[in-house]
Amino acid sequence: MNRKRLEQILDVSLTMFREKGFDDTSVMDICNACGITKPTFYKYVNSKEELLRHYYDGALETLIQAMDEHEPSNDYVALIWIGLSMTASRSIDLGPDLLSKYMILNFHEHTVTARYSAGGKQRTVEAIRKAQEAGQIRNLCDPEKLFMALKNLSLGLTLKWIMTKGSFPFFSHYGRMVEDIILPDYDTVLKQTGVDHRKKTG
Amino acid sequence: MNRKRLEQILDVSLTMFREKGFDDTSVMDICNACGITKPTFYKYVNSKEELLRHYYDGALETLIQAMDEHEPSNDYVALIWIGLSMTASRSIDLGPDLLSKYMILNFHEHTVTARYSAGGKQRTVEAIRKAQEAGQIRNLCDPEKLFMALKNLSLGLTLKWIMTKGSFPFFSHYGRMVEDIILPDYDTVLKQTGVDHRKKTG
Repeated sequence: MNRKRLEQILDVSLTMFREKGFDDTSVMDICNACGITKPTFYKYVNSKEELLRHYYDGALETLIQAMDEHEPSNDYVALIWIGLSMTASRSIDLGPDLLSKYMILNFHEHTVTARYSAGGKQRTVEAIRKAQEAGQIRNLCDPEKLFMALKNLSLGLTLKWIMTKGSFPFFSHYGRMVEDIILPDYDTVLKQTGVDHRKKTG
Repeated sequence: MNRKRLEQILDVSLTMFREKGFDDTSVMDICNACGITKPTFYKYVNSKEELLRHYYDGALETLIQAMDEHEPSNDYVALIWIGLSMTASRSIDLGPDLLSKYMILNFHEHTVTARYSAGGKQRTVEAIRKAQEAGQIRNLCDPEKLFMALKNLSLGLTLKWIMTKGSFPFFSHYGRMVEDIILPDYDTVLKQTGVDHRKKTG
């Protein structure tokens, strides 16, 4: 197994899926574009569908790193948003058509999307708890339940985004809904961190 | 067109879908069980898939009626819950397998599920506004945005329910998440309506 080869297969297939569509791209097409044989392809992935799962590879590491970098700011509202939005951005980046294929794959295999990863959940739940303790958000419900509500909201909004072929800007809608739920107190955030979110969200 | 005939087709097909599965039930199977010919079947529905859409027929009327009946109690928290849960119950009633077929249909046709019906939305947004005015809930965000967040949460949780083959009790999970978001003030509800939710939710 050669990590670079797998990455090549993933890059090439994603480009082809986007250009020709998932259904109209065969394993043979991908092999030809990569200059490999079918047996080589199947050393790396079990099926064309499985490629979609691989696009989430490394998402958790990227998320944890971003949260680690932001944590010292004590701006827990922003930290919550990183926790909620970063993995969702991988999904949105796939685009409505490919993402619908991925959802259908999850339906058929009865698997839940990769975004419910335990590590990311734990860190984001912790950020909610700290935001509550620091008075940065007004919703004081159980942090884990709140997290699950926010994650399921993301999943639902993603579904609607797919169904309408990406007709609305996902992150601005999701961001507003998250704010409506956690009820940030930006005056407190400003006092504690010096960050004025009103300038950004204007 | 004969309404009774359509209802027979819907009832029979739903039963067959549940017993044999959607894929293993053909239009001919449904015709035979109903004692009709294929041309008659296609006078009522355009496809087997379309039957799934029909299962939502009348959902809005049922919802509006239930909300009308409950409105005089001034228990707006309960009214919000009726607005959010009643149409979702049609989906859950389909079961994970049929509901996944319905979702895939919406993916392919780029339609949003029937549950985003304008009439039900308007009434529930109104209930949220009244709950805010009466101090029955603590979340004072824009009622329409709050409604959309709660609806998308429902959709996301439904998706997770499908993906895990209905592994958790949908309504108790959804109900807890809705409470975490709207933040009901049951003491105020009790004072205003005499209804003690704590007894029920114990």
